[in-house]
Amino acid sequence: MAKGAGMIHPRMATMLAYVFTDIVASPKELQRALRQAADESFNAISIDGDTSTTDTVLLMASGSSGVPLKKAGRQFQEALLEVCLSLSRQIVADGEGVQHVITLRIEQARSKEEARAVARSIANSPLVKTAWAGADPNWGRMLAAAGYSGVALDPERINIFIGEQQVCRKGVAHPFDGKAAHEHMSRPEYEIGVQLGRGKDSLCFFTCDLTSEYVKINADYST
Amino acid sequence: MAKGAGMIHPRMATMLAYVFTDIVASPKELQRALRQAADESFNAISIDGDTSTTDTVLLMASGSSGVPLKKAGRQFQEALLEVCLSLSRQIVADGEGVQHVITLRIEQARSKEEARAVARSIANSPLVKTAWAGADPNWGRMLAAAGYSGVALDPERINIFIGEQQVCRKGVAHPFDGKAAHEHMSRPEYEIGVQLGRGKDSLCFFTCDLTSEYVKINADYST
Repeated sequence: MAKGAGMIHPRMATMLAYVFTDIVASPKELQRALRQAADESFNAISIDGDTSTTDTVLLMASGSSGVPLKKAGRQFQEALLEVCLSLSRQIVADGEGVQHVITLRIEQARSKEEARAVARSIANSPLVKTAWAGADPNWGRMLAAAGYSGVALDPERINIFIGEQQVCRKGVAHPFDGKAAHEHMSRPEYEIGVQLGRGKDSLCFFTCDLTSEYVKINADYST
Repeated sequence: MAKGAGMIHPRMATMLAYVFTDIVASPKELQRALRQAADESFNAISIDGDTSTTDTVLLMASGSSGVPLKKAGRQFQEALLEVCLSLSRQIVADGEGVQHVITLRIEQARSKEEARAVARSIANSPLVKTAWAGADPNWGRMLAAAGYSGVALDPERINIFIGEQQVCRKGVAHPFDGKAAHEHMSRPEYEIGVQLGRGKDSLCFFTCDLTSEYVKINADYST
């Protein structure tokens, strides 16, 4: 179970998520399993770049299955990640004013953290997010945001894909069908791929567009 | 002279600014003078948190006055800062969809860089910027953004002021006239003060609200 509509840029600090299992495990084992799953799910989403003061993810185990975590091992970890990913995507889809949920697949990074830094920079750019709101295949805004992520990128090694279509090759425009790209970006959910040309690590990051509706929701009430 | 309406979060990387003087000075002297002035002006503004790829500030000196920089010294530096500040504020006021220009006065920081980190975190928060668009004295959003700035703040030492009115004292609500605050925030320009309770350094940072107009401008055209 999870809740959270705006102010979602978790660093485990108003997002609330509770995961229950009947596995037999110690708090330490559960903590380790959850941390690993949260890293690729709850900590790989952003709606508006605002970190809340009270993000919480809890994993509770009743032990009623009688199956020890050690025995379930990889199978348990995969199931946990699947649940966490599903909840994370639902949180993004439920974001204030959100029209599109975008999966940023960052590939060829030197580390997961490097991939996350690039993903966050793209996901938090108001210019990128408004282009997504307009279903505009503006890869230049994405490239610029990646460029100021703090990761020492070489633009000449960067490829960008919207769905299956390549739109940027080695940092420059790659001929593509603009109408098809616009149609693809008009779907409620789609994927954008960014290859960094630096290493072998990759990360999926879940984010959304920035719409006039978001502004209205957050500007037109007094708190 | 300066230009720049969106994508303004300079780190000297589409903002263009040119400053001319008739002082006599070496390139090295001009560079030092400009860097100092730019630090408190062009590098102390943000419209949308998007750093451009091509920010430029140039200072050119004809030498036709016959007055060497060394002689003009402090007077020249003050005049240069005044010009840079004026241009910087004009850039923010000219931002896409901007209705309010806000000066964030960050005080009691341990260093200028610390003050700048807090200012940028507040200035880049979509929740803060939309509250400003609604002229909503929501100091909690500002406190939260300061809290995730990366600076190790103690909320119990933080005071927040909207114009002359204190709205937050030692991290908690301070009784204030909400109607007066809303009216103050309805002006085209006003100041918000944040005291960190950590040190003696301070910085003024110039920023703006995030409006539906900004989203429309950046979503409704294809590039």
